[in-house]
This record gives sequence, C-alpha cells and structure tokens, in this order.
Amino acid sequence: MPESPRILAVLSPNVPFDDLFDAAACTRIESVARWKTPGRAYGAEDIPGQELAEADVILGGWGMPVLDDAFLDRAPNLRAVIYAAGSVKHFVTDAVWRRGIQVSTSAWANALPVAEYTVAAILFTGKNAFGLREHYRDARSEDGLRSEFRRIGNYRSTVGIIGASRIGRRVLTLLREFDLEVLLYDPFVTTEEATELGARKVELDELCATCGVVSIHAPELPSTRHLLDARRLELLRDGATLINTARGSLVDTDALIAQLTSGRLNAVLDVVEPMPADGSPLFTLPNVFLTPHVAGSFGRELHRLGDSAVAELERYASGQELAHAVSRRELTRSA
Amino acid sequence: MPESPRILAVLSPNVPFDDLFDAAACTRIESVARWKTPGRAYGAEDIPGQELAEADVILGGWGMPVLDDAFLDRAPNLRAVIYAAGSVKHFVTDAVWRRGIQVSTSAWANALPVAEYTVAAILFTGKNAFGLREHYRDARSEDGLRSEFRRIGNYRSTVGIIGASRIGRRVLTLLREFDLEVLLYDPFVTTEEATELGARKVELDELCATCGVVSIHAPELPSTRHLLDARRLELLRDGATLINTARGSLVDTDALIAQLTSGRLNAVLDVVEPMPADGSPLFTLPNVFLTPHVAGSFGRELHRLGDSAVAELERYASGQELAHAVSRRELTRSA
Repeated sequence: MPESPRILAVLSPNVPFDDLFDAAACTRIESVARWKTPGRAYGAEDIPGQELAEADVILGGWGMPVLDDAFLDRAPNLRAVIYAAGSVKHFVTDAVWRRGIQVSTSAWANALPVAEYTVAAILFTGKNAFGLREHYRDARSEDGLRSEFRRIGNYRSTVGIIGASRIGRRVLTLLREFDLEVLLYDPFVTTEEATELGARKVELDELCATCGVVSIHAPELPSTRHLLDARRLELLRDGATLINTARGSLVDTDALIAQLTSGRLNAVLDVVEPMPADGSPLFTLPNVFLTPHVAGSFGRELHRLGDSAVAELERYASGQELAHAVSRRELTRSA
Repeated sequence: MPESPRILAVLSPNVPFDDLFDAAACTRIESVARWKTPGRAYGAEDIPGQELAEADVILGGWGMPVLDDAFLDRAPNLRAVIYAAGSVKHFVTDAVWRRGIQVSTSAWANALPVAEYTVAAILFTGKNAFGLREHYRDARSEDGLRSEFRRIGNYRSTVGIIGASRIGRRVLTLLREFDLEVLLYDPFVTTEEATELGARKVELDELCATCGVVSIHAPELPSTRHLLDARRLELLRDGATLINTARGSLVDTDALIAQLTSGRLNAVLDVVEPMPADGSPLFTLPNVFLTPHVAGSFGRELHRLGDSAVAELERYASGQELAHAVSRRELTRSA
C-alpha cells in the first residue's frame, strides 16, 4: 500500500471553497489524502512554496495558474492535476505533458446542466410552449389558438444537433428517450458513429434546411465563428427555433435579430455575442426566450464538479486509472 | 391461420381521420384486417348497421358511443375495441366485460407528451430559467442576477411527484437520468414500489414541505378535488414551484393565486379550474408560466396515438396478446 498522496487545493479567491466542496466532500478528501491545510484552498498568487514542493496532486478549480516550466519547477513531486471545472486548455502547457503529469477534468459534469437545459428547451419548443404562452397572454382564451395546436408535438419531429461535443453527445443520449428524428452535423463524426449516437449525419446546410429545432454545441474556434451566418439562418425553415447554449460567437447575432424581428424564426438563447445591450430586441421579442448564461454549472451544480473531482482523487489514491483524464491530442480539438 | 379480423373505424366527425392515422398507418391496417370502407371512420351516430354487425374489432377514437347492451346487441361479433386515445371510462360499461370483449387503450402514448412537458418544466424550474428570464428582461444586465445564480441547479435538489399515474410513472422514469432527489406521494404505492420507481415514498404534507418543485399527476376524483388546498399550498417552501399538467380541480385556484400574487410561490400551469378569465393575474404574473392546455397529445403527437392503435391491431390480428389491454379492476382506480 503506497502512502496516501499529499494534496494542495488551488481555487480563485473569488469562489468560496464550499461552493464546490461540501462537508461530505472534504471528509472524503481527508480520508484518502494527506492535506496539510484541510478545507483550505489557495489562490494562484498565494500558494505556499513548501506545500507546493511537497504536493503529489493539485486539486484545482477556477483560477488555476498556468502550469509552465517555471511553475512546475516549484512542484517537483506533482503527478496529477485534478480539476473541478471544465476546460483545462488555458492552464495546461506542453511542460505538463513532458513531465508526465496526469490531468483530469470535470468537464463531463459541467456538460450535464447545459445538456439538461437544452433538452428542456427542445421539448418545450416542440410543443411551442414558449410561443403559445405568449399567444395565450395576448388572446386570453384558448379558442383562437386551436389551429396552432395542429402544428405542435414531439413525435417524429426533426431536431438538429450541431456538434457532437461532450454536451452535444449528452443531449443526443437524453433525446433517445423521445420519439424524435435527430440529425447531427459534426465534421469529426462518421456516419456510423452518428448512427450509434442515435442520429443521422448530415451536412450543416441540410441540417439547417430540414429541422424544426436546431441546437448548437460546437466549440468556439476561429473556424466556427458565425458558423450560423446570415446565409445559413436564411436556410432555416419558417417557424424554426434556434437554441444556443454554447457560445454567442457561433451565430451572426445581427442576422439572427433580423430573422427574429421579422418573426420568421424563434430562439432560445442562453449566450449572445455581443452581450445584449439595454435596447436589444432580444429582451422584448415574444418569440425569444433569453436567459442570462445560466445553462452551465451554477449553485448546487457546483457541488457536482466538486464531487466529480473528489471521486477522481479517490481513484488516484487507490491506484485506479483516472476516469476523466485529458489527453494531449484531445485538447487540440475541443473548446 | 384464422381469417383476418373485420374492422370498423369510429371517430368523432370533428377529428379528421388522418390527424390520427397517416397513410402508412392505413396501409398497415389494410394489410392485417378486412376493412370494408378503407380510410373511412364513422361518427357514433352514423355507424352503418351492416358493418357494425360484422365487425370483429372497433378501431375507435374520440367520440366513441357508450358501449352498453343496446349498442352491443347490434355488434354480435365484436371481440375487441382498440381505442386510439386515453381514458376509456366514459364509454366502457359492464356489458363490455360481461361479453368478454377486450379493450385496449393508447393512454400510455397519451401520457408521454404530458410527461415530457413536465420534465422540461422541472429542469427549467431547477435552473430558475423562467424567473431569470423575467429578471433579465427587467434588469437588462446579468450583473444584479449573480446572487440568484447561487440558488439554482439541478443537482441533489428535491422534486416532489404527486401520483404514480401513467404520467407520473413516466415522469419518474425520465427523471432517473438526472441527479435529483425524488419524493413520491401516492396512497396506492408501497415504499418498496416507490424505491423501484426511483423515489422515496412520503406523505403529502411532507412532500409539500420538502420539495423545491412539486408536480401533480393525480387522477381527478371526488377525493382529489383541491388536493392542494390553501393549507397544503401554505406548506410549500418559499420560492417553490408548483407544476400542474393534470387537472385544474386538483388545486384550489384562489389559494394558489394568492400565493402567486404575493410572489411566495411560482407556477407552471397547463390546466386551471376555472379557466382563467380575461382579468386573471395568471396571464400577467412574471412568476407564472401559463400554457393553454397543450401538454397532452396534439398535432404530430396524435399520430403516436394512431400508430399505437395500429400496432395493437397488428398484435390482435396475429393472435398475440394485446399490449395495452384495460382490465375492469384498473378502470375503477384511474382517471
């Protein structure tokens, strides 16, 4: 039985430690690791040299320092970084891989709430619940709405998923419970993989032209900026709904606003770029359901990130393989 | 191989036949049954005596006549009624059981859209998506909303389900994919059955006092009128959300409106009794998401009812057991 690992917790001073790690999580940490300052996380600027020098594992959250040679020279024992948040791209450098340090992410856990928000939005969109709520508010009676009822329903309707990212895949998994025709656009996914994911692989233009609901789960890359530009938005069917929980930059916002203002399209938007200013029609249009970037992990969902990291630490301490290790290759592809 | 059954289709003249049975469904019917007037359904008043006298199976939809002795005397060959809609209570009499006629319902298919609407409402409620959308509309900036973000999240939050009806059970099944603590109140379900359904059985008062979201799926019976009365609504936690997709009569609407007007509770309501009149605050309150009774099967979802009935007819014709037979005992308990 090897000695239990020495851990050091690193987290932005702006984030209360117990927002991520509740009392039960701290107890679990202490039972598998040596933790010099239990319940205490350090900001990147305040990490004590002695603790860093001794640490086998960094348990990290938002506000991780960049792990370059200068930093890692101060952490000669470091074998693993277990990150209780999403993307590790901004702090992992080649120096990490060169030194054989393992990196684990809780991105899988971060994906769940976004996928859940998306599925709720898809199901409500299929029933036109957002639109009928507004119509009902105006009409004050069901009578005039009956003709609209004939056009709704989550049965054999066509849903387009852009991007088989972690979140996109989770959405696809959740959608299997429903009777929908799911189309997938992802240049890295084969026809066979798409079928295994419960979807039919199509090109992006076909997806846009076919689906009543289109949900974006692509990474933010130079090549994906305005992936949904004016031309593609024009391809969308009359009355189609665009859901964006990914990044605002994936959509040409001006072109989208034009389509929303005309009433031709509807949208459920959790992200917009640029952020909507006071006079933006996105706040007032009845065919837009705009939320203030809440689809990701917030509140209670932060404890899922902490719990995920603790489970990973338990695996590490007992000599098991990490369940959510990040590979160097994977990092180049994802957001 | 016995002869294929003779069928007669019965449907309210107000419902176009192809709203329920698309061309593919009609082709399937014709390939397993003898159908004197293919593609034609009769209203209860217009059923031709000769077809009724010969029919082995009635393929029925909304607007079925009451199947009493007077009717059944005209249908001496009738062996099964396959109903492409929900409850059969209003047309099935003792005469049906006495004559050994099988009855099949598509209530399972009718339950799916209601469960889907409910799950979408639960997930959105957990994120306070409805509320934050309204706050964002007012504030025009995320900045002031951050404190609210700390209170949201679909992780280990407590959801209360009232009634393990078909719809309630489907909701419970769908909720298994999420990390929620689910409580169930249903006087007919044991603690063990509740556990199998992924929920913890509690009494109704405890459920009301414990859950952040409460969703009603109880049948409408004399004993369930105002099941959520003023006292129970008072038990609900500050900021809790009531979801009603079942029947308006299950909730004391005046008491609920008082709680909603004060802002103490929130609601997602697809049914209200009495129907909200023009001046009802339910139309305008920012903490109420009111839809015009659309959670059930509409539009494309009617084809699921038709497809379900056709699959049942195929089973009957090939000598298999019906998958959705209704028993006399079951009828006394359900809505």
